[in-house]
Amino acid sequence: MAERGRGWARAVRGLLLDVSGVLYDSGADGGVPIAGSAEAVRRIKASGLKLQLCTNETQATREDFVRKLRAMGFDVSVAQVTAPAPAACRLLRERGLRPHLLVHDGLVPEFAEIDKTNPNCVVLGDAAENFTYANLNEAFRLLIGMEKPVLISLGKGRYYKETDGLKLDVGAYMKALEYACDVQAEVVGKPAKRFFESALAELGVPAEQAIMIGDDIVSDVGGAQQCGMRALQVRTGKYRPSDENHPVVKPDAYVNNLAEAVDIILQQL
Amino acid sequence: MAERGRGWARAVRGLLLDVSGVLYDSGADGGVPIAGSAEAVRRIKASGLKLQLCTNETQATREDFVRKLRAMGFDVSVAQVTAPAPAACRLLRERGLRPHLLVHDGLVPEFAEIDKTNPNCVVLGDAAENFTYANLNEAFRLLIGMEKPVLISLGKGRYYKETDGLKLDVGAYMKALEYACDVQAEVVGKPAKRFFESALAELGVPAEQAIMIGDDIVSDVGGAQQCGMRALQVRTGKYRPSDENHPVVKPDAYVNNLAEAVDIILQQL
Repeated sequence: MAERGRGWARAVRGLLLDVSGVLYDSGADGGVPIAGSAEAVRRIKASGLKLQLCTNETQATREDFVRKLRAMGFDVSVAQVTAPAPAACRLLRERGLRPHLLVHDGLVPEFAEIDKTNPNCVVLGDAAENFTYANLNEAFRLLIGMEKPVLISLGKGRYYKETDGLKLDVGAYMKALEYACDVQAEVVGKPAKRFFESALAELGVPAEQAIMIGDDIVSDVGGAQQCGMRALQVRTGKYRPSDENHPVVKPDAYVNNLAEAVDIILQQL
Repeated sequence: MAERGRGWARAVRGLLLDVSGVLYDSGADGGVPIAGSAEAVRRIKASGLKLQLCTNETQATREDFVRKLRAMGFDVSVAQVTAPAPAACRLLRERGLRPHLLVHDGLVPEFAEIDKTNPNCVVLGDAAENFTYANLNEAFRLLIGMEKPVLISLGKGRYYKETDGLKLDVGAYMKALEYACDVQAEVVGKPAKRFFESALAELGVPAEQAIMIGDDIVSDVGGAQQCGMRALQVRTGKYRPSDENHPVVKPDAYVNNLAEAVDIILQQL
């Protein structure tokens, strides 16, 4: 980021951090922390900056997710996690929707209080191994059988990186169902503006005093900038050099990793 | 079709027939003939009209497909089947492409003569049970790892009907991979113009003297009309009443089934 100066790091009061690809690389083995990230989170807390995790994670409840992060050395709490499932539950309640869930087994408890009988919508998350041919056909048949199909997608990421390689994310399966049913999904999670606004409210800092740090050029960087935040792309996680030629989205800066971002931001405080 | 008259049935020398949803309803049990369709095929042959099956079937080789149709009472030969896999093989050879196949086990022999080492493209068919999370991730990783990803899709149908219900078709999975890899698939099969032109060449009749009969408003009817053919939609197979309000495609006529179409066409000869 030297080429652009460090003006982007001024007048900051809070940070929104993406998790997978920024704090750790996820994987079937539970994942591994990215070097320097746990220390960076500790330094953010010690600095007095506010901190909120803004994640599209939908493979676990927030409680299980935080337990995993804490076991990896990240000092974070459930209240510091903004995630799509609770946002989806608010939306379902507001509109009297009863979901059929095509989600990861680990996420199901987030919907415990929601009426799921006689479904009138489909909620799609990163179902991973639950993305079977049978489950996809079942969700499709429910949607195509509705007079006005309602598809709610917990994110629209294209792919993400796990320790054993890249995996298709929920957005790819969302596109499959959108096309088959000729319907447009409602996206809950990044990059939806409403989702970033919830995260900012939970952070307690206005957009112009917050910086989003993520590895996804579109969902993290583009989405946050649309809300008036500054946004950095880390060169960890699913970052690819071709992201730096993205036709639409330009981050306020690139950083090699979270630790470098925090170094620069703390120097400017 | 009474409301539009029967002018559409005049000056016909050959028929292109879609198969699944027109001749029979497919299914895990092998499928069941649609009432009157086998007799209709016999009457077409007896009339002297030329006949070619124009199918996006990619779950079996043409030989196995014809064997199944003959066992159901349809008097057809392998030469009378225009299908995507042989068209894809021609394209692969022309361009020196070596495919990774994500297709139904039953289709693999169609690619026996094609070099599949060190793949530089992905060929996607209606893989059905082979549409697993692992196989989709594998195809995705190969594509995203290519400097210029090449995705060849054997059709782009949204869904089809089997005896046990509607199933997502290859088009839905094509859209998933297109989105994840930010690439546009090349479609071999209906509704590609080149594919209909091959079918007409095999039929031996010019477009203006041929009628396409299918249950898919876009792939069958729209595709054939784009090539200058007349096209009928049958109210069998995956036909849905809402097709009759399609914003773009209007068939030359609707018929209740193949038998009715053949009745009218033969009366006009």
